[in-house]
Amino acid sequence: MQSCLELIKKVDVVPYPHETGYTEFRQSVYSLISHDGFFQLGYMLLPVVNALEAYPQFFEISALNNTIRFHPSLDTIEAREQALEIIGNTWRSATLFETLYGWRNEKYTIFSQDRKPYFHLERAMCPLFGVVMYGVHINGYMKLPNGEYRLWVPRRAADKPTYPGMLDNTVAGGLGYPYGPLETCFKECYEEAGLRKEYVSKKLSSCGVVSYLYQVKPGDYFSEAGLIQPEVEYVYDLEMDPDVIPHPVDHESEDFKLMSIPEIEERLLLGEFKGNCAAIIVDFMIRHSIITPEEEQDFIEITNRLHRFLPFPLRTL
Amino acid sequence: MQSCLELIKKVDVVPYPHETGYTEFRQSVYSLISHDGFFQLGYMLLPVVNALEAYPQFFEISALNNTIRFHPSLDTIEAREQALEIIGNTWRSATLFETLYGWRNEKYTIFSQDRKPYFHLERAMCPLFGVVMYGVHINGYMKLPNGEYRLWVPRRAADKPTYPGMLDNTVAGGLGYPYGPLETCFKECYEEAGLRKEYVSKKLSSCGVVSYLYQVKPGDYFSEAGLIQPEVEYVYDLEMDPDVIPHPVDHESEDFKLMSIPEIEERLLLGEFKGNCAAIIVDFMIRHSIITPEEEQDFIEITNRLHRFLPFPLRTL
Repeated sequence: MQSCLELIKKVDVVPYPHETGYTEFRQSVYSLISHDGFFQLGYMLLPVVNALEAYPQFFEISALNNTIRFHPSLDTIEAREQALEIIGNTWRSATLFETLYGWRNEKYTIFSQDRKPYFHLERAMCPLFGVVMYGVHINGYMKLPNGEYRLWVPRRAADKPTYPGMLDNTVAGGLGYPYGPLETCFKECYEEAGLRKEYVSKKLSSCGVVSYLYQVKPGDYFSEAGLIQPEVEYVYDLEMDPDVIPHPVDHESEDFKLMSIPEIEERLLLGEFKGNCAAIIVDFMIRHSIITPEEEQDFIEITNRLHRFLPFPLRTL
Repeated sequence: MQSCLELIKKVDVVPYPHETGYTEFRQSVYSLISHDGFFQLGYMLLPVVNALEAYPQFFEISALNNTIRFHPSLDTIEAREQALEIIGNTWRSATLFETLYGWRNEKYTIFSQDRKPYFHLERAMCPLFGVVMYGVHINGYMKLPNGEYRLWVPRRAADKPTYPGMLDNTVAGGLGYPYGPLETCFKECYEEAGLRKEYVSKKLSSCGVVSYLYQVKPGDYFSEAGLIQPEVEYVYDLEMDPDVIPHPVDHESEDFKLMSIPEIEERLLLGEFKGNCAAIIVDFMIRHSIITPEEEQDFIEITNRLHRFLPFPLRTL
């Protein structure tokens, strides 16, 4: 059994500048720098940087400064995407990185300092370059007349490539290009829970973002298991009616179960939820006065860690 | 007219480690260090550090490391409080710092790394030592049947020493020792808005914290106007009934006005709200789907800056 803070630290993994381990982190990872040298886009690990040594026409590597920079000649979005496509196709054919087994044919957008798309990148490639990934997470809930909450919780299919069999948020999905957060909500609500846009648009409420710096294997900066994953999840509450039962359409999950807060708390602390979904539920419980400063000793640190300010240009409209 | 992000940056002022100006900040301010050298408690400015040179029996100053450390002999809470009382009384009599004109005879608690009170300090002294101050902020609101929100907004009395005449949150107050957040809510709701505990306890909902690193005069690290103020505000929503009209009991504010969201937005961007109260209202508007990622281009950065992780031990139960 773990504490709520321990749960959050499994998602917001990388040390902060004032914490033990930050110096080791900074000395071990490479900053991915824009072609003009003006901003950083992500944190990369040595195995990936080493693999990019084969492409001096695309990337300039400085072991002295721990930086890997887009070649100055890659000064258009088209040039950058062409370079990344060549690299991605080669790595995928060569099965160089396990993370590429999950190739999706879905693009994520990476933003520049001047708030424009800097390049689009295959979703499975993003963790290799350590760039920010965006998604939506939706808590489908009911508030009973006595004030108690119930949440609709699906279990991920046993054959899903990532986190099979774990508990999940009611609906969640990545922000694939060219969809915005709300469009992604409508799309995923139908695919994952059979909820139609007409219903969802009346019941959905935007509630902020949860952001964090994730690693599958904490503190490992030298193997693929330690890839740095900066993530921003747009958070939504969906207040549902008793007669609406979510059901999987795309078979990404097994059946949904309507859970009480005590049941969710128990399963959270037992580690049955996928990590970032646990964080999203904790955020829900904080916003809805279920976790309070009178009872949770780590209330402040939990809230702070759920909203990490990532040191990269962030998505705009 | 300013943007919503500009509004937040007036409260969360000090640069983050990845931002321009951070190095200058770190090189200009002193870290206040515990007697055992194990943790930092606050950020102090040179005028205050210089004034403490007169007390070598209480503080060890290192200009080389930009640190000021409690003397190792101050190894009990009583010893530290005795030292701080001598210093405070002397400075107050000598009118050494303007901030001490606002002496309150109210103590704030400063916490240690092992989560115990490290010392209690007169509220007016806290900004001089740059330690974390805690408070509660309450949004009293109604949601109309058509989905529109109304917020109860008071104006601060014209003769208040700080921020006279500015708009405020419905109820707000510092966490004076020995009160916890909820007790402080009940106390302040009565004093500031005439709302009794019996009513408030049924309607109040804890919704998280807002935290930030404030300076009255941004970027000034060498005068009293630039004192570094780390703050954590416990945030509450108070859903109110149409027939309950808040009214000042302690005359800290003028009359309350029930404002629509468009009116609040206009007054926010015109700078009529006290800075941190504006931040608390923005947090409310994010949580209630009034500010959304579809319309606010700085949605992510605003949410992150509202929840800054302060590099000091934080309050626990």
